[in-house]
Amino acid sequence: IRENKLRADAIERGEFRHYMLKEIFEQPRAIAETLEGRISEQRVLDEAFGPKAGEILDKIQSVLILACGTSYHAGMVGRYWLESIANIPCQVEIASEFRYRRPVVTPDTLVVTLSQSGETADTIAALKEAQRLGFGPSLSICNVPESSLVRESDLVLMTRAGPEIGVASTKAFTAQLTALLLLVIALGRRHGLAAGEEARLVFQLMLLPARVEQILQLSPAIEELSQQFAEIRNALFLGRGTHYPIAMEGALKLKEISYIHAEAYPAGELKHGPLALVDADMPVIAVAPNDQVLEKLKSNLQEVRARGGQLYVFADQAAEVKSGPGMKVLEMQPVEDETAPLIYTIPLQLLAYHVAVIKGTDVDQPRNLAKSVTVE
Amino acid sequence: IRENKLRADAIERGEFRHYMLKEIFEQPRAIAETLEGRISEQRVLDEAFGPKAGEILDKIQSVLILACGTSYHAGMVGRYWLESIANIPCQVEIASEFRYRRPVVTPDTLVVTLSQSGETADTIAALKEAQRLGFGPSLSICNVPESSLVRESDLVLMTRAGPEIGVASTKAFTAQLTALLLLVIALGRRHGLAAGEEARLVFQLMLLPARVEQILQLSPAIEELSQQFAEIRNALFLGRGTHYPIAMEGALKLKEISYIHAEAYPAGELKHGPLALVDADMPVIAVAPNDQVLEKLKSNLQEVRARGGQLYVFADQAAEVKSGPGMKVLEMQPVEDETAPLIYTIPLQLLAYHVAVIKGTDVDQPRNLAKSVTVE
Repeated sequence: IRENKLRADAIERGEFRHYMLKEIFEQPRAIAETLEGRISEQRVLDEAFGPKAGEILDKIQSVLILACGTSYHAGMVGRYWLESIANIPCQVEIASEFRYRRPVVTPDTLVVTLSQSGETADTIAALKEAQRLGFGPSLSICNVPESSLVRESDLVLMTRAGPEIGVASTKAFTAQLTALLLLVIALGRRHGLAAGEEARLVFQLMLLPARVEQILQLSPAIEELSQQFAEIRNALFLGRGTHYPIAMEGALKLKEISYIHAEAYPAGELKHGPLALVDADMPVIAVAPNDQVLEKLKSNLQEVRARGGQLYVFADQAAEVKSGPGMKVLEMQPVEDETAPLIYTIPLQLLAYHVAVIKGTDVDQPRNLAKSVTVE
Repeated sequence: IRENKLRADAIERGEFRHYMLKEIFEQPRAIAETLEGRISEQRVLDEAFGPKAGEILDKIQSVLILACGTSYHAGMVGRYWLESIANIPCQVEIASEFRYRRPVVTPDTLVVTLSQSGETADTIAALKEAQRLGFGPSLSICNVPESSLVRESDLVLMTRAGPEIGVASTKAFTAQLTALLLLVIALGRRHGLAAGEEARLVFQLMLLPARVEQILQLSPAIEELSQQFAEIRNALFLGRGTHYPIAMEGALKLKEISYIHAEAYPAGELKHGPLALVDADMPVIAVAPNDQVLEKLKSNLQEVRARGGQLYVFADQAAEVKSGPGMKVLEMQPVEDETAPLIYTIPLQLLAYHVAVIKGTDVDQPRNLAKSVTVE
């Protein structure tokens, strides 16, 4: 039986050595399927969220996102998008913390839960607490139909990433971001997002699968880079704006599967403390899309370099960040601001994967962790 | 001149080996002086915030806190307090991040800046941006009179911690928390906080200086404990609720002056990733007051223990957390929920200090860091 299971396993993984790598490479399809049938004539369809979604969304004045772990990072990106694109106030809360706060309750708030499994105990409990307190209708963004969160929610937007086996979530995360952007657009046009802007964002979403496919080709270059992490015990990840949660997600992946103590900071906070940690043993990984905070980020990187830290930067080709002593740059294709967080996630997933393979850890089933956290 | 300077220095430090230790021990006075003249007949005086403060506070419907580093941690505690005590929605933002977001603007929002020096460049710029966007009146909680933030703000509540020399902020932080609680009470009674509750909170504030003095007596016990951190390179700090920011502050202190890579997590998030890091080389420091999340926290601690992690717990005497294999408990006197964050800060400051002394780092002037971050 064991042998059969092993063989079935190998067939399912196909050409890939681990489920995680397979799932990283499945992201173009996961994103495409999450978009499928949800867009028509350059607009996001209200019906994507459920039969009576239009009426419910009409009444929403703010959003409360509840999630744990990787899903919480997706929620943080969602908050930036909701405020800047949809002009809607948003709070994002760690589910295990929300349950024990006494928040100010607003009944016109959409409660959004994010969970791959739909069975995350803290998130289910947080949703129930939000309902008990009197917050508004609920929407679940989830990857497993018929799961508890799906059943508990008024509206549902399924991510269609397919089963995720690797404990470290990858394709479920980018599918969540895709789903969140659909929600942001649907809410946005009720709060002043112009039709032309909506069409532009929808077009960006349609480009995503191909963009992600292209970025996946960086895998061999990242594998080479990862050799330099073989002996590393600690790392810092830096990002600004929507890329701070992406840096957090990159750090979490490295923690989860390679047991490297990686921590993310919004780059501007470096000089308020963590810079004291920076030396030759503490590599710093930065995400540098070509956005409005690029120049500030560059000066943060100089601070690191001046202290003898080794930098690894994933930077837009146009960002003019070049490799040199103490700084290794991996160039990325130019990409629009709104979808950049999805794109920049990919190289960080690949980095965590390749480093874990070099370290020889159990990539798909890292120590101490379970795939779905169904206990509190 | 050098010799004179050294001698002046020694006189100023008095019996203390470092400014940081002196400043830790000055906290009872810093808190008492921050309260002085701001309370009368068991009520917080509106005039404490400026001559026309009453009128301005009457109109406030929400609060936006802007800060960096240690002050940001104080702001996070402030958010919990504002929502749970004063029933006022609050957002707290890292100043360097806020400047580049596009937040939803609400004119009845009090913009609160926190900064020891009043010259933190990112915080000043964030305040100006908030004003440009059309947020409401501003309040500065600051330790230096005549500083830029004080001059830029409509209302001012000075912390009276006295000059802080150590780069790692200690007494300015607890004075900020004291000032924030005064603000929470003043706003709270405009939003349903009963007079009896206000009197109870004011009484808690009055007890603080003596409570902190008592906790400082733990210093020798913590010094002994710190021996076990001599060879440590990494650590996790856990807290829940208002004690999550306190765990963050404890981790930041250790980072700043002992160069140990310490990171804080809300305890419920452990199982969503960071638990993979836990082994015998990664001690876990937890803050366990006797509050509503105590039982949850205890089960989080068991997860750590089950994975071979070494636990150090600062726990309320009544919490029934006992020392044993893999778990060293330092008992704390019982304390009320609202002021507990101030109390539990003290042992974490002392831990960082004593560890740094053992490690032989430059406690008062750690590498790479400046006292006031006046550049962006």
